[in-house]
Amino acid sequence: MNQKVQTLKGFRDFLPQDAKKRQYVISKLKNVFESFGFEPLETPVLEYEEILLGKYGEEGDKLMYRFTDNGERRVAMRYDQTVPLARVAAQYQNDLPLPFKRYQIQNVYRAENTQKGRYREFLQCDIDTVGTDSLFADAEIIATAAKCLEILGFSKFKILINDRAVFSLLITDPRQVLKKEELSKVVRAVDKLKKIGKEKVLDEIIESGISAERATYIMQTLEFQKPTNMLTTIFQYLESLGISSEQYEFVPTLARGLDYYTGVIFEIEIDGYTAGSVCGGGRYDNLIGLFSPHSIPAVGLAFGFDRTLEAMEALNLFPEDLSTTKVLVTIFSPDLADKSLEITSRLRSKNINTEIYLDAGAKMDKQLKYADKKNIPYVVIIGPDEIANSAITLKNLQKRSQETCSLEDLASKITSTL
Amino acid sequence: MNQKVQTLKGFRDFLPQDAKKRQYVISKLKNVFESFGFEPLETPVLEYEEILLGKYGEEGDKLMYRFTDNGERRVAMRYDQTVPLARVAAQYQNDLPLPFKRYQIQNVYRAENTQKGRYREFLQCDIDTVGTDSLFADAEIIATAAKCLEILGFSKFKILINDRAVFSLLITDPRQVLKKEELSKVVRAVDKLKKIGKEKVLDEIIESGISAERATYIMQTLEFQKPTNMLTTIFQYLESLGISSEQYEFVPTLARGLDYYTGVIFEIEIDGYTAGSVCGGGRYDNLIGLFSPHSIPAVGLAFGFDRTLEAMEALNLFPEDLSTTKVLVTIFSPDLADKSLEITSRLRSKNINTEIYLDAGAKMDKQLKYADKKNIPYVVIIGPDEIANSAITLKNLQKRSQETCSLEDLASKITSTL
Repeated sequence: MNQKVQTLKGFRDFLPQDAKKRQYVISKLKNVFESFGFEPLETPVLEYEEILLGKYGEEGDKLMYRFTDNGERRVAMRYDQTVPLARVAAQYQNDLPLPFKRYQIQNVYRAENTQKGRYREFLQCDIDTVGTDSLFADAEIIATAAKCLEILGFSKFKILINDRAVFSLLITDPRQVLKKEELSKVVRAVDKLKKIGKEKVLDEIIESGISAERATYIMQTLEFQKPTNMLTTIFQYLESLGISSEQYEFVPTLARGLDYYTGVIFEIEIDGYTAGSVCGGGRYDNLIGLFSPHSIPAVGLAFGFDRTLEAMEALNLFPEDLSTTKVLVTIFSPDLADKSLEITSRLRSKNINTEIYLDAGAKMDKQLKYADKKNIPYVVIIGPDEIANSAITLKNLQKRSQETCSLEDLASKITSTL
Repeated sequence: MNQKVQTLKGFRDFLPQDAKKRQYVISKLKNVFESFGFEPLETPVLEYEEILLGKYGEEGDKLMYRFTDNGERRVAMRYDQTVPLARVAAQYQNDLPLPFKRYQIQNVYRAENTQKGRYREFLQCDIDTVGTDSLFADAEIIATAAKCLEILGFSKFKILINDRAVFSLLITDPRQVLKKEELSKVVRAVDKLKKIGKEKVLDEIIESGISAERATYIMQTLEFQKPTNMLTTIFQYLESLGISSEQYEFVPTLARGLDYYTGVIFEIEIDGYTAGSVCGGGRYDNLIGLFSPHSIPAVGLAFGFDRTLEAMEALNLFPEDLSTTKVLVTIFSPDLADKSLEITSRLRSKNINTEIYLDAGAKMDKQLKYADKKNIPYVVIIGPDEIANSAITLKNLQKRSQETCSLEDLASKITSTL
């Protein structure tokens, strides 16, 4: 074959070892999402182009995968999960009990510059509560995020919380700290505080046409802002939900770049992982009504899936044993193959994931190597000696130990240590 | 908004009720796949066009979603999971321990005629064992399929089994029943036996240029063929794996249309569901080596996911209660909201999926209706009476009953009946 055998830049294969890690995290997240009453939603990978186009700014339109399909329709690939949610909210408005609490865990597609270590196909894990402006919903979203991290094994993390009103209050402030038309420039600059530092944020504010004196005054005032009443209520709910005040922090300079936030905003940083926040979100009351005749309040969050995995890897939080197969039943010789096959069925009936070695003629040594390579913890051997004694040899590859037991005891011996 | 709010033809949204059914089936299938030692693999939705083009015949090239990406690359969307597996087998040949047993559960894309009730985005559930010609692998694939159906609740099904050699033996038969160049025509016609009946199959064989007399002779000979030695061995392995001879049947006229099969072929039919087989597969030793310097033997199967769901629906096999939320904690009045919030945390800590009603001012009636609409079985009420008596009211919406209990007993009362 002369074809180049390769994956596209920015796209990835996940071989079993990685795929299992992904499944592990997804399953933990789903369990927590469901424990808070969020339910699954799936939308198609392709949408009519007009549904997605113009919803993510100029940059979004540029990075979107768009093409003409075989039926001459202009289509586009899923770019995020929020615009599809807005479409769903409008399309099924009569079928969805409000508030609608959904989670969605699907791939999105962006033709990003891969040199920056970005992927073009990556998983998003979102939860959103649609159709209520109750602050319970805001507190619940934050509590869900915290629970997810706890369940994944992150013991130390900080939830940074702010209210977009903290910025807009600078406009209504009697001291006239900020003019209305300056708001989004300042938000955008302050958003970079952690990345580029205060000096450069000031530079950027000044570059946007605000005097150096006023820029300093704006930053100072911002830093000394107090939590809004809304935040105080959310904090109280968080305490009721078991989130102690040590776990969260009011950060008046937290901005989150996106224009669409209208209320609480938050990000979670993990101790010992400095590459950025793994999770963030907030309230956005003007986006989900996009396709509806009236506006629909909403609050939600997104986990950065790749970053979450990276942080777990960095902090060594994956279970040591992600092997799905627990036992390899070897084949001593072709004439004893039936015996081995029977044992696999017996173990499976006891809910023990069991493989048989798939070559009746292979040397025992080769069979053991296969188990080793696949990280299968147990190996069962049944040869003529074992059959003569109505016994089975059970090897523990991790402990490099072996013992003999009866067929009846085999399953319980294995489950007791798994 | 003037935009048409709609999904593309052949593409589907899955709202929670359907999404939960899908997740239920996927999770059952995964468990069984893993119990037999199959491990997850994920490949990208986009591949270089040249990887996929020409691999599925003329029809496949026509139905494939193909386009030019922003970087002027010709790309194509996943059309099945077998060609990507062949690419993976070649690309990572040094990293994959052989035999490689993988499962893959991802969407594939085909621009099918939707008027035939076909979808353009649909889920495939495949398992394949790559890199061994051991008949254990063949038997194991069939046993895995049977186990899947059993676990999904199908109590009566029949595994139809044949060997492609049953057809080719007609060529080497001393009676010269079939000529080599007639083989694929005959296979293709016989493949339709169930759909169109014997008369029309004969017609089709005759139309392909074989005399009526010979056509009848071919069909007769075929019907009286005996299982090959290979099949006899596989049957013996199936028995060792606990599949009784009542569950499978040798069907010499089973053809499975695809050209690429080289050995055992099988299909599973479900009693009481007549729309077709939900699962099929076989051995195909010349396909996985497609991108490799040498051929790689393989055997596998695919579940028709939509059809499996349809059959489960028809036979009423979904659990009655697929609700993810088990308890709704209501809010008696805004000043008691904290009490309600605390109870949600307490229940969640006991692994009970719990929602709080997200509007502190809503009437109790409205809150109960929400629980009803979302099929939440339990409702908790904590009002001033309850607080005065250190008690909680627990309503069972399905039984239309209610009782009073202490906060301490609440979780165990609920878990004991879930």
